[in-house]
Amino acid sequence: MKKIYFKNLSEYYNKTITVEGFVDSIRDLQYVQFLIVRDSTGKLQVTIEKNEENKNLNEIVSNLTAESTVKITGTLLPNEKVKLNGHELIPTDIIVTSKCLEDLPLNYKDSKSALLDTRLNYRFLDLRSEKNILMFKVQTCLINAMREFVVQNNFIEIHTPKIISTASESGSNVFELKYFDRKAYLAQSPQFYKQMAMSSGFEKVFEIAPAFRAENSNSYRHTTDFTSFDIEISYLENLDELMDFEENLLIAGLTAVKEKYGPEIKELFNVDVIIPTKPFPRIKLEELYQILEKEYNFKMNYEDVGDMNAESEKLASKYIKEKYGHEFVFITDFSAKKRAFYHQRANGVPIGADLIWKGCEITTLAIREHRYEILCQQAKEKGLTEDVKFYLEFFKYGCPPHGGFALGVDRFTMLLLETGSLKETMFIFRGPNRVEP
Amino acid sequence: MKKIYFKNLSEYYNKTITVEGFVDSIRDLQYVQFLIVRDSTGKLQVTIEKNEENKNLNEIVSNLTAESTVKITGTLLPNEKVKLNGHELIPTDIIVTSKCLEDLPLNYKDSKSALLDTRLNYRFLDLRSEKNILMFKVQTCLINAMREFVVQNNFIEIHTPKIISTASESGSNVFELKYFDRKAYLAQSPQFYKQMAMSSGFEKVFEIAPAFRAENSNSYRHTTDFTSFDIEISYLENLDELMDFEENLLIAGLTAVKEKYGPEIKELFNVDVIIPTKPFPRIKLEELYQILEKEYNFKMNYEDVGDMNAESEKLASKYIKEKYGHEFVFITDFSAKKRAFYHQRANGVPIGADLIWKGCEITTLAIREHRYEILCQQAKEKGLTEDVKFYLEFFKYGCPPHGGFALGVDRFTMLLLETGSLKETMFIFRGPNRVEP
Repeated sequence: MKKIYFKNLSEYYNKTITVEGFVDSIRDLQYVQFLIVRDSTGKLQVTIEKNEENKNLNEIVSNLTAESTVKITGTLLPNEKVKLNGHELIPTDIIVTSKCLEDLPLNYKDSKSALLDTRLNYRFLDLRSEKNILMFKVQTCLINAMREFVVQNNFIEIHTPKIISTASESGSNVFELKYFDRKAYLAQSPQFYKQMAMSSGFEKVFEIAPAFRAENSNSYRHTTDFTSFDIEISYLENLDELMDFEENLLIAGLTAVKEKYGPEIKELFNVDVIIPTKPFPRIKLEELYQILEKEYNFKMNYEDVGDMNAESEKLASKYIKEKYGHEFVFITDFSAKKRAFYHQRANGVPIGADLIWKGCEITTLAIREHRYEILCQQAKEKGLTEDVKFYLEFFKYGCPPHGGFALGVDRFTMLLLETGSLKETMFIFRGPNRVEP
Repeated sequence: MKKIYFKNLSEYYNKTITVEGFVDSIRDLQYVQFLIVRDSTGKLQVTIEKNEENKNLNEIVSNLTAESTVKITGTLLPNEKVKLNGHELIPTDIIVTSKCLEDLPLNYKDSKSALLDTRLNYRFLDLRSEKNILMFKVQTCLINAMREFVVQNNFIEIHTPKIISTASESGSNVFELKYFDRKAYLAQSPQFYKQMAMSSGFEKVFEIAPAFRAENSNSYRHTTDFTSFDIEISYLENLDELMDFEENLLIAGLTAVKEKYGPEIKELFNVDVIIPTKPFPRIKLEELYQILEKEYNFKMNYEDVGDMNAESEKLASKYIKEKYGHEFVFITDFSAKKRAFYHQRANGVPIGADLIWKGCEITTLAIREHRYEILCQQAKEKGLTEDVKFYLEFFKYGCPPHGGFALGVDRFTMLLLETGSLKETMFIFRGPNRVEP
């Protein structure tokens, strides 16, 4: 790219350069005009004296509106008196490349100045804030480091179909689609297809792609159209090996983020990025229930429930933080009633776990049932035989033992930066009542 | 991962190891049994003498079927007489981890032995072929190298919504969806949202994600659910800068592929991966028409058509190959009638190009119209004002000049490996008549 990024400006002192960016603010004083111009990497002061020679420039600035975009040619001078980075641009030419209307419908610089719904309506302005741009730089860094980790470990990247023929997996919460002269559905997850890759001998696969849930939920952590980071691995020794792998994956991501953006995250989000120690605490669900009852008088019965809910997730994190000083915890041994039919079981208990971080579930891991007859039986118990017929085929002709997990990219980012809601975190949020912009 | 991969077996000579894989073939002779076991990295001979001591193992192998999966413990011995890699495993234990039915519905090792439709019905078996597994390793390498290139250039990764509220962009070929109590649509591309990111000041973004087209076409290069590699960049000098960027991006990808898989691709696909020289040839469409008429007596009238079709793409590549020895060509200056309303125009001609590779269009590039009034006018001309109302908003409050392109990941892989069809190339193909498995 030929563009000069503002963070690199000190390389251009006393040179004539052309810069581009948004007009962040304008001060039009009696004898001088100041423009603060910003790009995604920083800000720059442009100083224009009011005089005959600058007549044209002065007029352009007089008519300029904040948030317009400009292309400015001039000489970059170091100047200790300039508080902003100790330099200023003295322009010879200003081109207004796009003009912002006089009144912004949203003051994006103060997120408290508008209702969240207004901010989401004008998300393209809301995203202009320093915090939001940092958020997506951080997410890029996080996901890229995790992706590099799996690619270096020889995972194959797959792109599974999002349009599917049956309302698979749970049978509910699926969006229906008009597909030429028939019905089709949107994939809730790449679950069946990443397992198919195991049957095809791909051994280790990943996919980062949208997943769709027709859940009529308006909670802080639900959305209908989210990004899922999916992993599936053949020939695992056991669930521990899978949990070990996820620990290494998350540590790779968090380490990259801390190194590159730790101080900025602290400054703008007031969050410390903590690299977790290995192994993460691992607790059986029934044992967790006992602990939560003893510690917090929180009662849940394993026989009746056998699952987590929002409150027990919060308390689990609280306990683990107090007891072990750890942000993460794996909860294992959920009830078979509450887990998908394709989880392998040992003595009737699914061989799987949920990973909880900062009081919120971010991953369900499991060893899959790869043996055709048992899998058919488990599908039958849940009344799914017809819906998952095509999937059961994958296991008839040999399929390695395997397991895997999925991580919600948006939810992970929300917890990392503690934004409090997916609505604040997603590039564009989608929920039951929001399909715009 | 604890699994020992077969390509690394020479590190384990004379050691007791446990290996896992598919049974590739079985030879049960009078005095000895041979198993060939394969994983995603290679093959291994397992040799079991028939004798009293091996009675259990001999029985297991007698009952084994090819394509079952096994877990075998034994001693790995170097042995020059073994043609397969010069070593063999002498087992003490064989566990059949999954059993394949006696008769496979598809001989995946001979792609010509079944109709393409049968192979697609049993894609999970079809993908077991060495060629297909290599294809996805190559695609992983290609996309990863291109992604690394953009991440190193400080692009921000975005995940745009796939569920949208209006049948946007072209207004046709859109899948309709039941979204709670209203209608919604599947995004044909992230076009509007990656441009929104420009308005938000993200400057350089990329997305690799599915895109959906309800095109009732059964050609070799069309599908309803494909993977799009999207790029959008602010503050470009001109279209040349964008074409330069795409050249560098493709060269980064192709170089990585050639280095890692060049010889294997030659062996299995009989294709030479050629790293193109820069700059790629660039020709105006009208000039191309004149050339094709002169060289091949192929007639198209710019006034009437102003666009490419499958045949002119093929001939363009043929000409460029003959004349410049190049596989790529940018065709510029299409007619405004044939280009999207959001392409910026110079003297009425859209500032954009198509990139043609091996006779097939792989990318449309364009500088976008970022000026609100002109953009509204161009939308109006195409009768789209209502459908794109939300999109036009993005340009009211300042938006940098920008441009970008999209590359079809599946199509690119198809052309790279010369598979001849997307049906052969996609993990799971989707077309008007195929939404299974």
